[in-house]
Amino acid sequence: MTDAIDPVDLTARLIACPSITPRSAGVFDVLEAALKPLGFEVHRFFAGEAPDGPVENMVATRGSGGPHFAFAGHLDVVPPGEGWSGDPFHPEIRGNLLYGRGAVDMKGGVAAFVAACAAVTDHPGTVSLLITGDEEGPAVHGTRAIMAWMAERNIQPDMILIGEPTSEARLGDVVKIGRRGTVNMWVTVPGVQGHVAYPHRAENPVPKLARLITALEAVHLDDGTEAFQASNLEITALETSSRATNIIPGSATAQLNIRFNNLHRGEELVALVRRIAAEHAPGATVEAKISGEAFLTPPGRLYELVTEAIREETGVEPTLSTSGGTSDGRFLIALCPVVDFGLPNATMHKLDEAAAVEDIAGLARIYARILRNALA
Amino acid sequence: MTDAIDPVDLTARLIACPSITPRSAGVFDVLEAALKPLGFEVHRFFAGEAPDGPVENMVATRGSGGPHFAFAGHLDVVPPGEGWSGDPFHPEIRGNLLYGRGAVDMKGGVAAFVAACAAVTDHPGTVSLLITGDEEGPAVHGTRAIMAWMAERNIQPDMILIGEPTSEARLGDVVKIGRRGTVNMWVTVPGVQGHVAYPHRAENPVPKLARLITALEAVHLDDGTEAFQASNLEITALETSSRATNIIPGSATAQLNIRFNNLHRGEELVALVRRIAAEHAPGATVEAKISGEAFLTPPGRLYELVTEAIREETGVEPTLSTSGGTSDGRFLIALCPVVDFGLPNATMHKLDEAAAVEDIAGLARIYARILRNALA
Ligand SMILES: [Zn+2]
Ligand SMILES: [Zn+2]
Repeated sequence: MTDAIDPVDLTARLIACPSITPRSAGVFDVLEAALKPLGFEVHRFFAGEAPDGPVENMVATRGSGGPHFAFAGHLDVVPPGEGWSGDPFHPEIRGNLLYGRGAVDMKGGVAAFVAACAAVTDHPGTVSLLITGDEEGPAVHGTRAIMAWMAERNIQPDMILIGEPTSEARLGDVVKIGRRGTVNMWVTVPGVQGHVAYPHRAENPVPKLARLITALEAVHLDDGTEAFQASNLEITALETSSRATNIIPGSATAQLNIRFNNLHRGEELVALVRRIAAEHAPGATVEAKISGEAFLTPPGRLYELVTEAIREETGVEPTLSTSGGTSDGRFLIALCPVVDFGLPNATMHKLDEAAAVEDIAGLARIYARILRNALA
Repeated sequence: MTDAIDPVDLTARLIACPSITPRSAGVFDVLEAALKPLGFEVHRFFAGEAPDGPVENMVATRGSGGPHFAFAGHLDVVPPGEGWSGDPFHPEIRGNLLYGRGAVDMKGGVAAFVAACAAVTDHPGTVSLLITGDEEGPAVHGTRAIMAWMAERNIQPDMILIGEPTSEARLGDVVKIGRRGTVNMWVTVPGVQGHVAYPHRAENPVPKLARLITALEAVHLDDGTEAFQASNLEITALETSSRATNIIPGSATAQLNIRFNNLHRGEELVALVRRIAAEHAPGATVEAKISGEAFLTPPGRLYELVTEAIREETGVEPTLSTSGGTSDGRFLIALCPVVDFGLPNATMHKLDEAAAVEDIAGLARIYARILRNALA
C-alpha cells in the first residue's frame, strides 16, 4: 500500500507545464516523479524531428505477466488562444472548477490514472501507462512510436482504456467503443485560365466542379449500423486558382471530408470519389489523406468492466458511442480491445478549459475500480 | 503651319515619366510643352484624394466654335512588373520596336494625337485633347472629372476618338464602336458552421451553392446582336468562410462576372441573379458592382471618317468590333458618338511592352487624316 495521490493536485502540477505539442515543458518529469514511488518502471524516449518533433513519450509499467491492463493518454495540449480569464498555465480552482489548459483534455485523465494506480497496488499481472506527447499534433511520433517501442519488447496489453474526455452532460454518461474513420480529399478540376472578356479562349472549371459536388452530395454511403451512425461526406472548403474579378480561373478545388463507419475502408472511398470525379469532371485530380480507418471494440469484458464501474461509482448508465472526433484508439485497436472514457468534454480545446474537482476525483475512483476488477 | 512633331520621339519622352496610376511623374509637363507651341490652350487640374488620387487631368483645346472634334486618352500606365529585358521607363528602340511601359497603352496614341494636331493646323472649329491620369486605376477621378469640368464650361464635342490600342494583327484591323457592359456579383449562401463529426448540428452551404452555380450556368442571356457577341456569365472565384479540414463552413461564396451587350442593363442582370439565388438557395445574399453599361455608337459619320482614313493610309479594311475589355467610352458616350482606335495591342500590360516605330508614325497619319476630314 502506498500513499494516496490527490488527482486534482497532480492535474494542477501537470497543467503548470505549458506542454503545447510537440513541447513537453517538464510535464513528463512531473509524471515520472509521481509514478516512481508507486513502484513503476518508467521508460521515457523521444521520437521524430523538427518541426513536428522531437516528441517525448513514456511507457511506465508495474508488475509482471498477465493479465496486462493499460491506461493510455497524452500530456500535450492545444495552444490556449487569446482571451482566458486567467493564465492558462497557472492552474487555479475557482468555485468548484480547476481551470487551465489541459484540465479536461487530458491532464485530468492522466492524473486520475496515477491516483487509481496509487489506490490499487496489490494486483496480479501488469498495469501500464502509455503516455504520448503528440496526440493533438500530427500524431505521427506519439502512440505509433509507443506501439513500435512495445513491439520490440514483446509487450502486449490485453485491454486498453484511453482517458480522453468522452463524458458529455455528466461524468460517466458516454463511453466510446470505437470511432468513425476519416479521410480528407482535394478534388481539383482543371480549366484554362483567361480573361473574362474572351471566354472562348478560356475554359471555366467552376461549372464542372459544381456538377461534381452535386453528384458527390447525392452519394448514399450507408444507413449506419447498430454501433455507428451513417457515414457522411462534407465539402469543407472551395477554392479557385485565381480570385480576380476579370479572370476565369485555371482550376477549381473542393476540399472534402468523409467520416465513415466500419462498413467502409478509406481506400475504397477514395476510389469511389475518383470514379465520380472521372465521370462528372474528366481530367479532375483527387488527392487523398486517410487520417484513420473506422474501428470498433466488439462487446466483451472491457465494456463490462467500464460500464459496471461507472454505474457503481456514479449511478449513471453510460451510453456506448462511436460518435465524435477520432482518437489514438484507431492505432491501439491493432493490439487489443480499446475503449475511451474520461471527463466531461464541454470545455476541451476552448478558452477557460476547466474540470470539476469532484469529476477528477470521481474519475480516479472509477479508474481504480476498473483496474482492480480487470486484474482481479 | 507649325513644325512637324515626331510622334516616336514624343512617345519616348512620355514613357520616360513613370506615371503609374495615380502618379503623373511629370508626364503632363511633357505633353503641355508639346501642345503649347501648336496653339493649344492647356487646362490642367487635379481630382480625387489619396489613395486613389490626386489624379492629374488635362483638357487642351485649339480653335473655337463647331464642329468640335476631340481626341481622348490617358497617360497613366499599369505597373511594369518584374522581368523586363530593359528598364521599362527608359525607352529604347531595338530592331523596329520602341520598348517601354505605355508604348502601346497608350502614350504612343497620345503622341500620335499631338503629331496629328501638328500636321493639321488650318482647320475650322475646335480640336481638343481630353487626357486623364486615371484610366488604369479606379477610373473615378479621370474621364468623369474631365466631363464634369467640361459640363461646367458648356464644352461639348461632336465626336470623340479614343486612342486605346484596338488593333490586333496589324495597324488598322480593328476599330471598337462600343463595348459590352460588365457587372461583378458576389453570391453568398449562408449555412451553420460546425465540426464535420457532428453534421446534424451544422448546415453545409456548399451543396446549395453548387446547385445555384449550375442554375446560373444554365441561364441563356441572348444570342448576341449584329454589333455584339452574346452576353456571358463566368464564375471567377469560389470561397468558403473557413478552410479547415474538420469544419463545415458557415458560408460559401461565388464571385461572378457578366459581360453583357446592349440588350441588357446591369440592374436587370443583378435582379435576375437575385431571383435565381432566391429560388435555388433561399437566404443567399447578392452583392453587385456594375462597372459599366454596354454602349454602342450607331453607324454614322464617325465610323466613316475612321474607316476611310484607315483604308486610305494602310489599305486595311477595319473590322468594327465591340469585344474586349471596357474603355472610358462607357462614360464619353453620354456626350456624342465615340469610337476607339489605336495601335496593335499584343503587348499591352505585358512585360517588354513595345510599339512598332512605323505603327506610331502610321497612326499619327491616320489621326491627321481623320482630324482634317472631321473639321473640313
Ligand atoms: Zn485529447
Ligand atoms: Zn489604355
